[in-house]
Amino acid sequence: MTYTVYDASRAPNPRRVRMFLAEKGVDVNYVQLDIQKGENLSPAMLAKNPMGKLPILELADGTCISETDAICTYIEAMHPEPPLLGTTPLEKGIVGMWQRRVDQCLMLPVTQCFQHSTGYFKDRMTPVPAFGEQAGKDVVAFLDILDARMGESDFIAGDAFTVADIIALCAIDFARVVKIRLAEHQENLKRWHQLVSARASASA
Amino acid sequence: MTYTVYDASRAPNPRRVRMFLAEKGVDVNYVQLDIQKGENLSPAMLAKNPMGKLPILELADGTCISETDAICTYIEAMHPEPPLLGTTPLEKGIVGMWQRRVDQCLMLPVTQCFQHSTGYFKDRMTPVPAFGEQAGKDVVAFLDILDARMGESDFIAGDAFTVADIIALCAIDFARVVKIRLAEHQENLKRWHQLVSARASASA
Repeated sequence: MTYTVYDASRAPNPRRVRMFLAEKGVDVNYVQLDIQKGENLSPAMLAKNPMGKLPILELADGTCISETDAICTYIEAMHPEPPLLGTTPLEKGIVGMWQRRVDQCLMLPVTQCFQHSTGYFKDRMTPVPAFGEQAGKDVVAFLDILDARMGESDFIAGDAFTVADIIALCAIDFARVVKIRLAEHQENLKRWHQLVSARASASA
Repeated sequence: MTYTVYDASRAPNPRRVRMFLAEKGVDVNYVQLDIQKGENLSPAMLAKNPMGKLPILELADGTCISETDAICTYIEAMHPEPPLLGTTPLEKGIVGMWQRRVDQCLMLPVTQCFQHSTGYFKDRMTPVPAFGEQAGKDVVAFLDILDARMGESDFIAGDAFTVADIIALCAIDFARVVKIRLAEHQENLKRWHQLVSARASASA
């Protein structure tokens, strides 16, 4: 089985997929695209993903799966070990809950803060700076909630490393571009960040 | 197995869970909360979901799972028939891709348009009207993409009814509150809307 992933090395969602694949030990051909130049919006790429986003997973027969969560769902089904989305129904539910929380309350506002406050993609969307600023405040508020959570367990969804840790790491590291960093008092989160950053997959 | 769902009958995400459970034929005790009055923000409810959102699924032992997608993941694992998230790895990937697209390009901007343009939750968030207006334009643009897709298959993710249809129906029906409706020329989408609205679960 040979996979191709259309990648953008500095963007946070492609990094999620690279980490997920590295944790699984799955080999992939990576094709780099420059999203600032809009290489992801060429007719050839829009045929692979009409939404014009990266990453995209291409299977050996040319079938394309886009959307980071969907790529992870497919890879988990094809390569179940080690499990990153939970194994029992309850684990799947709890992992899914934290996956969604860090995605919508951290990754989403980090990327919205970036896009709306910097105007990086102003050729393809309408930035609203006041909303970007608000999104940044939402990120800062959620980091305190996550810090409290990290006082309860080693990893975000419980005792095991999961996709929720991958999303949170990629979001927190990317937040540097909008000058948001972990605060001095967020000791639990800093411990977790050190633990997760030390994994080989973090540099995938 | 007895489930309790903390519900808000007029909100779009609780409706997603009601439809999902109705399709599965799973019985549930529903507890209604008034989100405008902030009943979901009481200490008792925040103990069940610190994010203060609905719906919440409570298991017989008191364990709570929040986030609509995570509730659906748990229910699918516990009650696999009929499958609403795909069965083979490829189906899971393709369903997941459309689930995410309709969630992030339709449901999310519909609710953001509502929250930011009406100020409905201004006691608990900072509305940015210019962003609400932009979100509404994003919804209208995505409905044309979805209309083109519905020229290719009976349901959004392919030949079978899935969670993607549930999300899209709940988002499109809720969009009436911001005066967005299917356009005259969106014939494929109108056919799909009629087909899906006729299911018993649509009135759950």
